[in-house]
Amino acid sequence: MGIDPGLTRCGLSVVQAGRGRQVIPVAVGVVRTPSDAELAERLLRISRAVGEWMDEYRPDVVAMERIFERGNVSTVMNTAHAVGVMILAAAERNIPVHMYTPSEVKKAISGNGRADKKQMTVMITRILGLSEAPKPADAADALAIAVCHCWRAPLLARTQMALNTAGEKRS
Amino acid sequence: MGIDPGLTRCGLSVVQAGRGRQVIPVAVGVVRTPSDAELAERLLRISRAVGEWMDEYRPDVVAMERIFERGNVSTVMNTAHAVGVMILAAAERNIPVHMYTPSEVKKAISGNGRADKKQMTVMITRILGLSEAPKPADAADALAIAVCHCWRAPLLARTQMALNTAGEKRS
Repeated sequence: MGIDPGLTRCGLSVVQAGRGRQVIPVAVGVVRTPSDAELAERLLRISRAVGEWMDEYRPDVVAMERIFERGNVSTVMNTAHAVGVMILAAAERNIPVHMYTPSEVKKAISGNGRADKKQMTVMITRILGLSEAPKPADAADALAIAVCHCWRAPLLARTQMALNTAGEKRS
Repeated sequence: MGIDPGLTRCGLSVVQAGRGRQVIPVAVGVVRTPSDAELAERLLRISRAVGEWMDEYRPDVVAMERIFERGNVSTVMNTAHAVGVMILAAAERNIPVHMYTPSEVKKAISGNGRADKKQMTVMITRILGLSEAPKPADAADALAIAVCHCWRAPLLARTQMALNTAGEKRS
């Protein structure tokens, strides 16, 4: 499951990793919360919506975009609150969470850590064999994060196995 | 209930508002999470501990310190994730949440928005009639936030009532 976190718009996606670099899209969507609602109400809505997705699709892992302290302070804080709530939803279901920076996602998908939105959308549409570009942008981003994890997970697993083996040898 | 939010240490307090400016301390404590644990595990622990306090003491309202984008970026982000999780815990129990800036709390308690930790501890010990200063600092801060809300709530209620009356007159 891929999540492009946000309080006003949160992109959600589910993909299935296939053989090699094949990735099959399963679901994509956007959860919105009204910007005039109270923060508590908005976090509750995000929590419930993300929890429902997790209960319905039972993902093996959640990949989420890591947020940075740039742009509007209150937007960054709101997104950070939403991220906390979504990590909690995964933790309550024993689903591991992996975080990727925007440039890690861009690099994994397009080979370029500074790819723009248009390039990313073209690549993700091609990779997933979609007949048209996913909309809105948050949905496309959520798919890109999920694909990024599918492609990086085997490497992460090998690295972890190597670290574990090294640890066992030491102890 | 007063909360001084943090991921490593989170101060929690419960007070009972009495007549006038009287405030009676009910409970105070600190929830800690190990800094070497995964973020998801830490947020889960915070969520459960704060939820247990809310279920045990059934507070009418939660007052929390508003965090600012200062200091170490990853500390601020971790605190913001924890804040999201705690606001959610309140929202799931229909408990309203009020946020106060550190200077609002300092001003309410000591009359000085720039009071230092020592002054704040002396004041909160005196206000609550404690035989000794509450420790650690996060616990004292959680009490200060709760007292701040007790003293400001009547004013907030009057302001809200005035706004509602004005709204009714307009409509």
